[in-house]
Amino acid sequence: MAASTRDLTRLFRPRSVAVAGASTSVDSPGHDYVRSLREFGFEGAVYPINPRADEVAGYKAYPALRDVPGEVDLVISCVPAGAVLDLVAQCGEKRVPFLHLFTGRFSETGDAAAAQLEQEIEARAAAGGVRILGPNGMGVYHPAGGVAFRPDLPQTRGGVAFLSQSGNNAVEVIVRGSARGLGFGKVANYGNGVDITPGEMLRWLADDDETKAIGAYVEGVPDGRGFFEGLRAAAAKKPVIIHKAGRTTAGARSAVSHTAALAGAAELWSTVIRQAGAIEVRNQEQLLDLMVAAALLPGFDGRRIAVVGGGGGRSVQSADACEENGLEVVPLPGDVREKVRERAPMLADWVGNPVDQSILAGSGVSSNGLLEFMLQSDAYDVAIANIGEDWFLGRPDAGERLRHACNRLAGVVQASAKPVAVVLGPTETPNPEHRELIDSVRDDLIARGLAVFYSVERAAFALGKLAR
Amino acid sequence: MAASTRDLTRLFRPRSVAVAGASTSVDSPGHDYVRSLREFGFEGAVYPINPRADEVAGYKAYPALRDVPGEVDLVISCVPAGAVLDLVAQCGEKRVPFLHLFTGRFSETGDAAAAQLEQEIEARAAAGGVRILGPNGMGVYHPAGGVAFRPDLPQTRGGVAFLSQSGNNAVEVIVRGSARGLGFGKVANYGNGVDITPGEMLRWLADDDETKAIGAYVEGVPDGRGFFEGLRAAAAKKPVIIHKAGRTTAGARSAVSHTAALAGAAELWSTVIRQAGAIEVRNQEQLLDLMVAAALLPGFDGRRIAVVGGGGGRSVQSADACEENGLEVVPLPGDVREKVRERAPMLADWVGNPVDQSILAGSGVSSNGLLEFMLQSDAYDVAIANIGEDWFLGRPDAGERLRHACNRLAGVVQASAKPVAVVLGPTETPNPEHRELIDSVRDDLIARGLAVFYSVERAAFALGKLAR
Repeated sequence: MAASTRDLTRLFRPRSVAVAGASTSVDSPGHDYVRSLREFGFEGAVYPINPRADEVAGYKAYPALRDVPGEVDLVISCVPAGAVLDLVAQCGEKRVPFLHLFTGRFSETGDAAAAQLEQEIEARAAAGGVRILGPNGMGVYHPAGGVAFRPDLPQTRGGVAFLSQSGNNAVEVIVRGSARGLGFGKVANYGNGVDITPGEMLRWLADDDETKAIGAYVEGVPDGRGFFEGLRAAAAKKPVIIHKAGRTTAGARSAVSHTAALAGAAELWSTVIRQAGAIEVRNQEQLLDLMVAAALLPGFDGRRIAVVGGGGGRSVQSADACEENGLEVVPLPGDVREKVRERAPMLADWVGNPVDQSILAGSGVSSNGLLEFMLQSDAYDVAIANIGEDWFLGRPDAGERLRHACNRLAGVVQASAKPVAVVLGPTETPNPEHRELIDSVRDDLIARGLAVFYSVERAAFALGKLAR
Repeated sequence: MAASTRDLTRLFRPRSVAVAGASTSVDSPGHDYVRSLREFGFEGAVYPINPRADEVAGYKAYPALRDVPGEVDLVISCVPAGAVLDLVAQCGEKRVPFLHLFTGRFSETGDAAAAQLEQEIEARAAAGGVRILGPNGMGVYHPAGGVAFRPDLPQTRGGVAFLSQSGNNAVEVIVRGSARGLGFGKVANYGNGVDITPGEMLRWLADDDETKAIGAYVEGVPDGRGFFEGLRAAAAKKPVIIHKAGRTTAGARSAVSHTAALAGAAELWSTVIRQAGAIEVRNQEQLLDLMVAAALLPGFDGRRIAVVGGGGGRSVQSADACEENGLEVVPLPGDVREKVRERAPMLADWVGNPVDQSILAGSGVSSNGLLEFMLQSDAYDVAIANIGEDWFLGRPDAGERLRHACNRLAGVVQASAKPVAVVLGPTETPNPEHRELIDSVRDDLIARGLAVFYSVERAAFALGKLAR
């Protein structure tokens, strides 16, 4: 039996890739995998395997894996399930360390013969020293390594790792997370996860220098203990956010037909995740919000929060959201109140925390100014800044004023060592000019590295979960 | 003492409006109120009151209310707090039934003299037979009556009423709700609510034919019993959604400085809302989702839900979301399974509810086809259709395919008497073409009258709350 590698470096950063089942049809995964390597600037050798084509997506094609001249670190399989055993044998012959099986229709179908074939593949691969990612998964996305499972995905890179049992969820998290300013490092969609498990990947990512924060979407795991140990190892070194799906009876039933994973009791999972020191979230939106907070904000201790911006209604809603998420909306301390009194005596006994922007008009103090005072005070650990864009949109020169306020806000946030979550509402208006303006302001804030949330409730949830 | 009217018709549909404190400065509320009447096509007489201007926003100005030649149904006040008593007196002389006080700086400031002035205004108005909306509120938005509190607001109209203690919240709900396909009827931002209360408005809206569904944002109410009775009257006749803010200690403290309303215990409020037959929500997002569901979907009994679309991960997440919101994800019944067997034998024992779109590829059955079968079956009361746009966006001709699938979906939804909530994710991608495509598909679906939600969790929450 050949020795299998436990070092996953070449899975995420292969020096050469072969795509079995590479296709000349642009509307097929077998084409997308090859084209993705080109689009992402993969620097190593690319070997499309296709017995009936001379080239695929501009790379010279080979009839079979065994015909490839050089060494291959990663084989991506798009061949039908029935052809996988032969491919595994060829991987063994060529000493390929990693085989990613995009190929599906195994145990997830509920068909006994298909499940048996999956087991046989797993056993033969182990005997041949070949590690398997999948089957029934999209595989690896690692922009810094030039590898991606779809050519249209964002090419920005960074230190956020993401492990996902589901492919469509992985795509959504990458695309939506990138739009929110997350730069992804190592992402794996492991599907049925018969060999390389999320637990093993978590353990490995714990010591991976590129990885600064980790998210994971799991439906179920084959190795409960291994998962817990990997989780604990990773969470000891960096923030780890876990979205456990398949919590309900119907969810678990659906998970079985998706990736054949047994989902298990929700309470047990919550306990395990908490005990490992990781953070549990309940849906993709929460996952993205937590990853944004964990990756883009400085770490913080303490739960005393300063909230500024928006009108009176937003202030009340902000206070509710903060307290209901375990944050303490501490009243304005004397030092801040004195600074207000110097500039706007009439407001000094009226303004509170949260700061109602609408009562500041013409007072000589802006909500950004108040945010600055509050961040300077020892009374606060963390802050939320509501942009309150609805007010600007009703004024003449809305764009100019809104941009000016956002520039000033960005300056205040960047000058502070304390974390500030920025709230800019969803781009939800029938007015096309306002849509363009809000989108563009959001892009600007994100490009400056700010953590931007769509509502104060989502910001408060993320901060409340992250606060130790 | 003059008799005050209890009929609010002329508040929302005045035949003539005077704006006290009308301004020639385009950057002022005193200008906006006048201009809004023009922009919204108000058909009655408009009387700007300004002793130093000949005209405001194209309307002839008058030095004082008492100089206005005709009758006035509604006076909008933008004068400073100190000038309000005189205005009230003039309203009484002219037998003006409704005075909306945009004017603020009363009890909400926490200043005793200001609070006393507010009480005196209330008493004098009552003695003069003048009903007051406000103070410290934006007032009336009623597009069908040609009245609005900001000229930039959407002009679409419909049967959704909304009462809001907060002005910025009212603006956000109108703008965001309109983008989601809600047509608004009677909207009032009542601020401190010293005279006309939300309870009174609810009671009146109960019998208002234009009003099909009602939302309300309240921080606190001066008349607990009146609110409960109004709520019960309205909820007996149409769906009523209540967002009660100021639930927490900090939220209540903030509410006092916002509109001087005592917020009160959250549990008590929840009980009252439930006992009145209304639906409680906890934030603006939930309010909008419930209003979309209540206004755009046919009513339904029963909680058995069919879910289609999206990949396997989405299916698992959908099942969790539905069950956690009290909906029953009933397995595919025999009649539907037989229809699948006829067209795609291999799938008949694999596909389940939720329907995983990714296993249907090339099978001869689409998720829209399955949705049609499921809606025809007696086994389901209600449905959620995930568009699963992430898959389309990775294919060639993404736009064409996505539009085709959405057209087909809209046809299936429109042909069914059962409610179908459509899920199209947030427009959250760094790719500008994809942004444009998703926005445009969303606008199309909404223009066809569909209820569109940003996530399956939000759709399931709304349906779960609405199901009786």
